[in-house]
Amino acid sequence: FFDEKSGEVEMYIPPINICLVAPGIYRSGYPNKKNFSYLKKIGLKSIVYLCPEDYMEANVQFMESQGMTLFHFKIEGNKEPFVDIPPNIVKEALKVVLDTRNHPILIHCNKGKHRTGCIIGCLRKLQGWSLTSIFAEYRRFAGTKARALDQQFMELFDIRVDYSRQHRPAWLQDI
Amino acid sequence: FFDEKSGEVEMYIPPINICLVAPGIYRSGYPNKKNFSYLKKIGLKSIVYLCPEDYMEANVQFMESQGMTLFHFKIEGNKEPFVDIPPNIVKEALKVVLDTRNHPILIHCNKGKHRTGCIIGCLRKLQGWSLTSIFAEYRRFAGTKARALDQQFMELFDIRVDYSRQHRPAWLQDI
Repeated sequence: FFDEKSGEVEMYIPPINICLVAPGIYRSGYPNKKNFSYLKKIGLKSIVYLCPEDYMEANVQFMESQGMTLFHFKIEGNKEPFVDIPPNIVKEALKVVLDTRNHPILIHCNKGKHRTGCIIGCLRKLQGWSLTSIFAEYRRFAGTKARALDQQFMELFDIRVDYSRQHRPAWLQDI
Repeated sequence: FFDEKSGEVEMYIPPINICLVAPGIYRSGYPNKKNFSYLKKIGLKSIVYLCPEDYMEANVQFMESQGMTLFHFKIEGNKEPFVDIPPNIVKEALKVVLDTRNHPILIHCNKGKHRTGCIIGCLRKLQGWSLTSIFAEYRRFAGTKARALDQQFMELFDIRVDYSRQHRPAWLQDI
């Protein structure tokens, strides 16, 4: 885009594996500074970050400058044989994600494949999607890195999430 | 979902390769009758259909029953060496897609990979996305069926589209 004020052509570089999941909810891999103008452009209000490590300092500063809120849920990805994503933390994350006061919101881990894929899969279950459709979407992002354990996690996930009924998105049918 | 009225559990089966492209705009493969309840659920208002063949009778009837509008642009997919998607028809389709009076709108071809991928790539150019990001998204849907010719089409596409400035989506920066 040609910006008349700056006289420069602006190009948007969204984070890897970016996707609009449902109105107000985005998913992606870890954003870096090349992606900041895109995050501004979509009017992002908050971020759900799913890795155990502290958030990158440059990202913290960017978010503060924009008045964005960070929700940090420390999750290890599913890994055979004994590392499992804790379903209760996913439920806590979904409570944040399904609160329209936090929208537009971005959910991300490192690559936007596994942890993010799992939480989106759980969200799809709440939306009433068939497992076949959920797994197809999961694999679209995970590609050759798809994990059976992730799909099992989504299949077993209990959809009773105690999100705010008052602030839920209009597209989420209450159950 | 448990429907109290019918006493039945409802499950949504979205069309293959379904994705929300931007607020108000979906992409997918060809919807069939298993997908109709999902299309109702998202409140679909119109469909852009990109194949030369007549639209399936069952789909025509479903759309009429829901008061949805069909926009039919007859396009052959890019095929080496001499079949090319006509850019002018893509521009006409984008005028429909970028008119919020038609939203929510679904764009589809047969598999939701090539023709649909091309038109979404052209839309991303209008949004100012880098080519790398556009191609990554294209390949996420086309997978092993990705076509160099499709990517060339997107790269060469001239973004001057005469869409209605009055009815364009708020997220589309005017150029």
